[in-house]
Amino acid sequence: MLSEQYIQMTKQKSVIRNIAEAGAKRAAEIGYDNVFDYSLGNPSVPSPESVRNTLHKLADMEPMALHGYSPTLGISSVREAIADSLNRRFGMEYAAAHIFPTSGAAGAVAHAVRAVTKPGDTVLTFAPFFPEYMPYINTSGAELKVVPADTASFQINFEAFEEMCNENVMAVLINTPNNPSGIVYTTETIKRLAEILTEKEQAYGHDIFLISDEPYREIIFSDVDAPYVAKYYDKTMTCYSFSKSLSLPGERIGYIAVNPAYEHAALLVDMFGQISRGIGHNCPTSMMQYLIAECIDETSDLSVYEENKNILYKELTRIGFSVVEPGGTFYIFPKALESDAVAFCNKALKYDLLLVPSDSFGVPGHFRMAYCVPTEKVLRSIPVIERFAKEVYGI
Amino acid sequence: MLSEQYIQMTKQKSVIRNIAEAGAKRAAEIGYDNVFDYSLGNPSVPSPESVRNTLHKLADMEPMALHGYSPTLGISSVREAIADSLNRRFGMEYAAAHIFPTSGAAGAVAHAVRAVTKPGDTVLTFAPFFPEYMPYINTSGAELKVVPADTASFQINFEAFEEMCNENVMAVLINTPNNPSGIVYTTETIKRLAEILTEKEQAYGHDIFLISDEPYREIIFSDVDAPYVAKYYDKTMTCYSFSKSLSLPGERIGYIAVNPAYEHAALLVDMFGQISRGIGHNCPTSMMQYLIAECIDETSDLSVYEENKNILYKELTRIGFSVVEPGGTFYIFPKALESDAVAFCNKALKYDLLLVPSDSFGVPGHFRMAYCVPTEKVLRSIPVIERFAKEVYGI
Repeated sequence: MLSEQYIQMTKQKSVIRNIAEAGAKRAAEIGYDNVFDYSLGNPSVPSPESVRNTLHKLADMEPMALHGYSPTLGISSVREAIADSLNRRFGMEYAAAHIFPTSGAAGAVAHAVRAVTKPGDTVLTFAPFFPEYMPYINTSGAELKVVPADTASFQINFEAFEEMCNENVMAVLINTPNNPSGIVYTTETIKRLAEILTEKEQAYGHDIFLISDEPYREIIFSDVDAPYVAKYYDKTMTCYSFSKSLSLPGERIGYIAVNPAYEHAALLVDMFGQISRGIGHNCPTSMMQYLIAECIDETSDLSVYEENKNILYKELTRIGFSVVEPGGTFYIFPKALESDAVAFCNKALKYDLLLVPSDSFGVPGHFRMAYCVPTEKVLRSIPVIERFAKEVYGI
Repeated sequence: MLSEQYIQMTKQKSVIRNIAEAGAKRAAEIGYDNVFDYSLGNPSVPSPESVRNTLHKLADMEPMALHGYSPTLGISSVREAIADSLNRRFGMEYAAAHIFPTSGAAGAVAHAVRAVTKPGDTVLTFAPFFPEYMPYINTSGAELKVVPADTASFQINFEAFEEMCNENVMAVLINTPNNPSGIVYTTETIKRLAEILTEKEQAYGHDIFLISDEPYREIIFSDVDAPYVAKYYDKTMTCYSFSKSLSLPGERIGYIAVNPAYEHAALLVDMFGQISRGIGHNCPTSMMQYLIAECIDETSDLSVYEENKNILYKELTRIGFSVVEPGGTFYIFPKALESDAVAFCNKALKYDLLLVPSDSFGVPGHFRMAYCVPTEKVLRSIPVIERFAKEVYGI
């Protein structure tokens, strides 16, 4: 009488986890320093000192004020601080009523989908895509469908997108900067996407929402065109997390910002509150809400990620890999040296290189490297990658 | 194209919230000290000093260790600390594998229901019951049905229960100590319940789970028979929150403990992880997990609740109310002085008494007082209650 749906989910072991486990086993043998672990997207830089200082300050608050129930829609002053920051940075006009604090970007995407779909509806996303979108969406009763990638640029494959559009599509989910490709959608891409969505809305006679998952927004490299998506499409729900910007992945804090240009923006936020209530989650912790409001415009020192990207992009290209240069994140997504990405990554394991095959991201024949690792380790890994490519593939 | 289900939920304004809002308006006029606010179940005693000390200690931890991702099923050492504490206190044999940290007891109940039901199944609970069970269960697709109260004792009405049992019942949800009655189910009640569940399992040929919601477990008054429910029924999922014991309601931290006597206990915990994953919640915050592990056997000074209960039970009885004496919590649930509880509470509002009518708890003609307020205020409220009863109802 146990739920068959969730029993099945327990059986689908994540590919990334299998690799991480193999790596951990190997690390026990030869030491973690000697394993080139590019498998996991865990921030590798500490939170800024202001996070520690704020935590001490909060701990000294009157306990009932600090630890009391948050209102269903979040603490007002926190929602206002988020709105103000977005308005300052992106020239938007959010008010507190358009902001809903969530359990990271994961909670944000899961809520956004539940608010604008019913079971049987379709949500479209673009390969390569973050595989956790599958459980976020499929457990809601809606169905995630994946538009094939434009592997030349990892921008959007608009031809394939238009072919897959139909009247069941209620929402389109994008992730920019993108996990796993590291690509940032250009202003041109976002404008074209907005145009098509507007055309399709008219054709189908119903709203289509754009869910923009942006946990990597603060990790954008020099001179990259990185538009604020909601500026280009009224029905945009922006999903954000402080996991990467403040290196707080375990603290589960983020938000959804609903574009105030959408006429029912405040109603959507009210609905998020009801979705949260139904799953017994209610709000993120009061303490983390207060924390991020105090640190709203700060980030960890994220410069290491660009440094690592520069090294990897240059060296992988030199070695002979085909790579699209990332514009942000801490991921790079080169083409594998054989068509079977799983076989390729298994062979790399023998060189103590932990790479993630691309199949679960919806693209065959590539691999993801999460370069949220110390730069000295990136440098040490280059000759190993070179040796692997030469010995196994003769390049 | 917005979800009709959640739009409808935004329209159902909570009765408790309406009263609290009326009270807030009145407080603005005459000062909060002069409003006798018995409406909200917010802890009124601060967290123990150990909570503050632990927060400072955690803030000084290495940030990446403190704020890193928690494993899907929670931090091992935290799960172990919870299991050990339960084993010490209640003679159980939990291991870490039987413990799942949740976003309070709310998250615990919502997960427990989703693991053991499919859409269309029935969950039974007993009046009076916590009205938030409705959204927790009904949004899962299962249906909550409420067994009428035994208003003489607020123990279980077994006759009504047996009549409502049928093969669609997959889980029974109890709340002891009970919100709103303050009653603690006796050992006799739990034993009888376990017997019936075992009989019904055999009759229907499937498991029936007992979901025991116990956020008030640490608020049990002197000499009250308060059995640990899971000792009496193998298929028990115990749902707990630190909201009341450590006065941390806004920090959303609790757990589900699955009785290890149930053969698939660890599988259930794995399934909880998948349920959490689907809604993008993942785990409670790392910081709160570490906090409660450090403070696992501590509580706030909860003695004020018993002091308030003693005053209210004695005085309400003296004034002429019919009251069942609470065995725990910070609630009391007297019979109203007219059959229409809403009318009764509206009349009380004119005396600046904020009482909650019983209808949403599944029992007519009663009212709930949440006496998590300062004792001096309880004392000042007595002559007001007396005047109200005399002037309006002539008693």
